Amino acid sequence: MDLISAVSNITNTKDVFAEEARKRLDNLTKPQGSLGRLEEFARRLVAITENRMPSLDKKIIFTFAGDHGVADEGVSVFPKEVTRQMVFNFLSQGAGINVLARHAGADVAVVDIGVDFDFGNLDGLISKKVMMGTANMRKGPAMTRRQAERCIGVGIDLAVEYAKKGYKIFGTGEMGIANTTPSSAIAAVFTGRPVIEITGRGTGIGDDAFRNKIKVIENSIALNMPDPKDPIDVLAKVGGTEIGGIAGVVIGAAANRIPVVIDGFISTAGALIAYCIEPKTKDYMFAAHNSVETGHKAMLGKMDLRPILDLDLRLGEGTGAALAMFVIEAGLKIYKEMATFGDAGVSNEVLN
Amino acid sequence: MDLISAVSNITNTKDVFAEEARKRLDNLTKPQGSLGRLEEFARRLVAITENRMPSLDKKIIFTFAGDHGVADEGVSVFPKEVTRQMVFNFLSQGAGINVLARHAGADVAVVDIGVDFDFGNLDGLISKKVMMGTANMRKGPAMTRRQAERCIGVGIDLAVEYAKKGYKIFGTGEMGIANTTPSSAIAAVFTGRPVIEITGRGTGIGDDAFRNKIKVIENSIALNMPDPKDPIDVLAKVGGTEIGGIAGVVIGAAANRIPVVIDGFISTAGALIAYCIEPKTKDYMFAAHNSVETGHKAMLGKMDLRPILDLDLRLGEGTGAALAMFVIEAGLKIYKEMATFGDAGVSNEVLN
Repeated sequence: MDLISAVSNITNTKDVFAEEARKRLDNLTKPQGSLGRLEEFARRLVAITENRMPSLDKKIIFTFAGDHGVADEGVSVFPKEVTRQMVFNFLSQGAGINVLARHAGADVAVVDIGVDFDFGNLDGLISKKVMMGTANMRKGPAMTRRQAERCIGVGIDLAVEYAKKGYKIFGTGEMGIANTTPSSAIAAVFTGRPVIEITGRGTGIGDDAFRNKIKVIENSIALNMPDPKDPIDVLAKVGGTEIGGIAGVVIGAAANRIPVVIDGFISTAGALIAYCIEPKTKDYMFAAHNSVETGHKAMLGKMDLRPILDLDLRLGEGTGAALAMFVIEAGLKIYKEMATFGDAGVSNEVLN
Repeated sequence: MDLISAVSNITNTKDVFAEEARKRLDNLTKPQGSLGRLEEFARRLVAITENRMPSLDKKIIFTFAGDHGVADEGVSVFPKEVTRQMVFNFLSQGAGINVLARHAGADVAVVDIGVDFDFGNLDGLISKKVMMGTANMRKGPAMTRRQAERCIGVGIDLAVEYAKKGYKIFGTGEMGIANTTPSSAIAAVFTGRPVIEITGRGTGIGDDAFRNKIKVIENSIALNMPDPKDPIDVLAKVGGTEIGGIAGVVIGAAANRIPVVIDGFISTAGALIAYCIEPKTKDYMFAAHNSVETGHKAMLGKMDLRPILDLDLRLGEGTGAALAMFVIEAGLKIYKEMATFGDAGVSNEVLN
């Protein structure tokens, strides 16, 4: 499925399905609306899937790995090699996302979309390499337009493939040393906010490195002049391969009526690219959590998404998405498994 | 274990254990502190249990049911009979707490501590009835001092019993038509805030009933004059049996070095009674979520507890505690299961 046909498949979810779900929820043995957002999640899942009894039995998190030329500018506390080292860690089940996905009953698909390392034929790794890391956006565009389109295509193809495999909910995640830098750039371009307001300390840089990071982002935007009306231009000039992959998964999920849980700051940059390509994608998104990164709130606000969790997370990988999946599934179980007033012989007479 | 010996067993948790846990966390393959509150939960669990490798394999939620004489004053949209009807619903696994406890891998102990109904010998129900519902606090004290002490004793005994059974974490929950009314009264007495500021709409009362509820609470406090320096006096005069049971579980948990997850508004009223008896209990508490009830924040603030979830819940029963247990356990799994930098061959060299 190419980008144009994927986008043409995306429709807004229909209120009639959410309304039907609400009727069932209002007849369960609890005061109406008393399970708050859990009820919202159930209504949205019914509307997204257009299925009165949806299931989330197969869950997957796509963790895209990619390198960034801009890492050369000293914007991260970790060396670039950590991206590939963490890919090995994902495959041997030792990373945060492995632990939390297991806890939530989700599988993890580790995707090399742009790591600056030749993994050869590595068991368990999904090889979709578009390039050996992006170019340094401070010196020119991070990618060509064609490369940016290929990144989105990788995400769409994976969404289609895993939908066919029977996965019922997707989560996004990423690994890429320096990737809060392109994410802040994307946030600045689309929200129009000053770089300083939407830039954070990533993995934990000090004051000097922080000032430098802001300058790097400002210079990259000034040099490349990404066009906010052309999301693929923004992705190409100041984005990253994993951010493009995430945008593609979101578009592919929406085209296939599959809910997609957006992890944190970097994933939200990818989701925002998807949203700016086709705003209807929003109906299929769940914002997993409120990241420590300051630009996150601005991007969520742009899409009018309310995060599910607020746990001071700033790891990425899809860790927040894994936890949020558990909470979303809780809403579905409430909807499917609770007794009705009639079943349970509980009075739903309301006094005045 | 009686109240005095339980309280004398409670000590503050020791920073040295949390510090050791932090060292391990800082050597896992993630930027230091990047899993935010999940790391906090792991540190606290190690400090509470004084065990470097604690386990949460057996989890239980105590759902205390009790009736309230003040229900006669028209403070709830549901008739009093719903309390006993919901007890049957809990036992047949049809309620919200059943669904969410199952989802989180927790057991539920349903305790009749003060329902105004004779259940006889009902399979699965833990019978600890102190009284057939409280008296109407608008006309006099809800309980005698002796009854209030017995309610706390029930909670302590259950904590001791379930600790012996090998349960590693407790959650609190409750069912009692009209029980936001005594909870708001307790909040007003201990925080000194005006009743109108800490009273909400419970199961969803309209404007007239809401104004009436505020008056009922104000009148009950004026009539009974509970002494904020004497928490058992407060519990007796404007509290409830289930609120006393929860206070007892919290004290019993702290006396046995067991973490206890406090559900929402009513549970927090119980936890606040325990805290005012012995402030060290706070070290053992986790605040599950931020309830829709406005008085909740004031009580959490009094104890300086930060809620884990914010999902607009207002059902009670222990539903928020069940969800929060999953998140707390996520923190423990991160601590126990993630690879270290050395294990995984990931560089933890930090650049400057």
